[in-house]
Amino acid sequence: MSSYEGKAKILTPRSEGEMNVQFKDDATAFNGKKHEVFPGKGALNSEASELLFNYLEERGVKTQHLGRADERTLIARRLTMIPLEAIARFRVAGSLEKRTGLAYGERCEPAVVEFYFKDDSLGDPMLNDDHVELLDLADRDTLATLRALTRSISLELQAVFDRAEIDLFDIKFEFGRDTAGDVVLGDEISPDTCRLRDQNDGAILDKDRFRKDQGDLLEGYRDVVSRLKRVLSEEAS
Amino acid sequence: MSSYEGKAKILTPRSEGEMNVQFKDDATAFNGKKHEVFPGKGALNSEASELLFNYLEERGVKTQHLGRADERTLIARRLTMIPLEAIARFRVAGSLEKRTGLAYGERCEPAVVEFYFKDDSLGDPMLNDDHVELLDLADRDTLATLRALTRSISLELQAVFDRAEIDLFDIKFEFGRDTAGDVVLGDEISPDTCRLRDQNDGAILDKDRFRKDQGDLLEGYRDVVSRLKRVLSEEAS
Repeated sequence: MSSYEGKAKILTPRSEGEMNVQFKDDATAFNGKKHEVFPGKGALNSEASELLFNYLEERGVKTQHLGRADERTLIARRLTMIPLEAIARFRVAGSLEKRTGLAYGERCEPAVVEFYFKDDSLGDPMLNDDHVELLDLADRDTLATLRALTRSISLELQAVFDRAEIDLFDIKFEFGRDTAGDVVLGDEISPDTCRLRDQNDGAILDKDRFRKDQGDLLEGYRDVVSRLKRVLSEEAS
Repeated sequence: MSSYEGKAKILTPRSEGEMNVQFKDDATAFNGKKHEVFPGKGALNSEASELLFNYLEERGVKTQHLGRADERTLIARRLTMIPLEAIARFRVAGSLEKRTGLAYGERCEPAVVEFYFKDDSLGDPMLNDDHVELLDLADRDTLATLRALTRSISLELQAVFDRAEIDLFDIKFEFGRDTAGDVVLGDEISPDTCRLRDQNDGAILDKDRFRKDQGDLLEGYRDVVSRLKRVLSEEAS
């Protein structure tokens, strides 16, 4: 493995089985067409990810997370990533509004799960199960595992956010396989990869602030991290 | 039921359980943005539909088809339509090229099945099973039935087209329910609703001629109908 720089993170090998995941301060949207740098964003996202990965590990979910290297760098297991984005949606927003014509904020019961092909040149298109099989991205059993993990992990996190008085509208996961062949949660979990709304006033607390130019991005991210710390430390005590 | 005029057909009630389906000479593409009239197209499409509905009925498939009223009008059972377009794809073309990055003409084994939400104002977006459930368009059992019928009917038709030396790239179906609640094949089956390529020279024999401005539309449709007549009359004799 050589170093790899993506839009939001830089991955650097530490050893055969481990890598550093450095969270960049860059924000990008609309498939990279909008771009800005927010000093401190990487540190906040690494903190959110660490908190939530640790929480999930305690609940028996296998994640890539191993520890922290510095203020904005986590240590992670190296995985063979599956090139899919799995999205769980609890409320209608964004592309689901356009696709269904349903109103913003309408509840999805049960949650809607979608898979997208992680391919910038194609614009990350939505795939159904037959497409995933045609492209040989995951076999039927793996896809069933991804779907089940997406449902169960998103429900765990919805409950955490709910305790923090945050409505989790939707959340994106990426999965990989470890050397034993097990499916493991990878990538990150942060306000970059969720839609989060304040339960009290509906305020946007996630990357939609940047997409829609609505308020200070980092203020929202800081709020999310401090609320997560509060509810997860209550949990621990 | 009052009369209903769509982009390609006019539906008129005959009795409580029956309607006339008049095939228009209009061709439309790109969600109605491109439009032209081809005198004689309606008659050809009604003939292709009649031939293929009759063939499927003989093979035990329930269709809406009852008979013929005039040169371009078929008589059909009235159904409560399910607002989905079901597409079976045997080779990559059109939106499947863009979605997957696979090359035009590449084989899909097994066939890919897709569902689209029949809603012009939304641009007929692709849906996955969770979206269909969220929108309450079909329950899980109905969706499984639609998927199974789409697979089996498209395979029957692929074999017919193959005997006519035509490659069936993809085909669209619409289904409805009869008064007994059974799922029945509705709408039409014609060169408007399939991608058909001559097996000998790859020539386009379907509505892609219109979409891509490639040659006389009706010449392709006439060719398809005459080949179908030939192979289906051989069958009958």
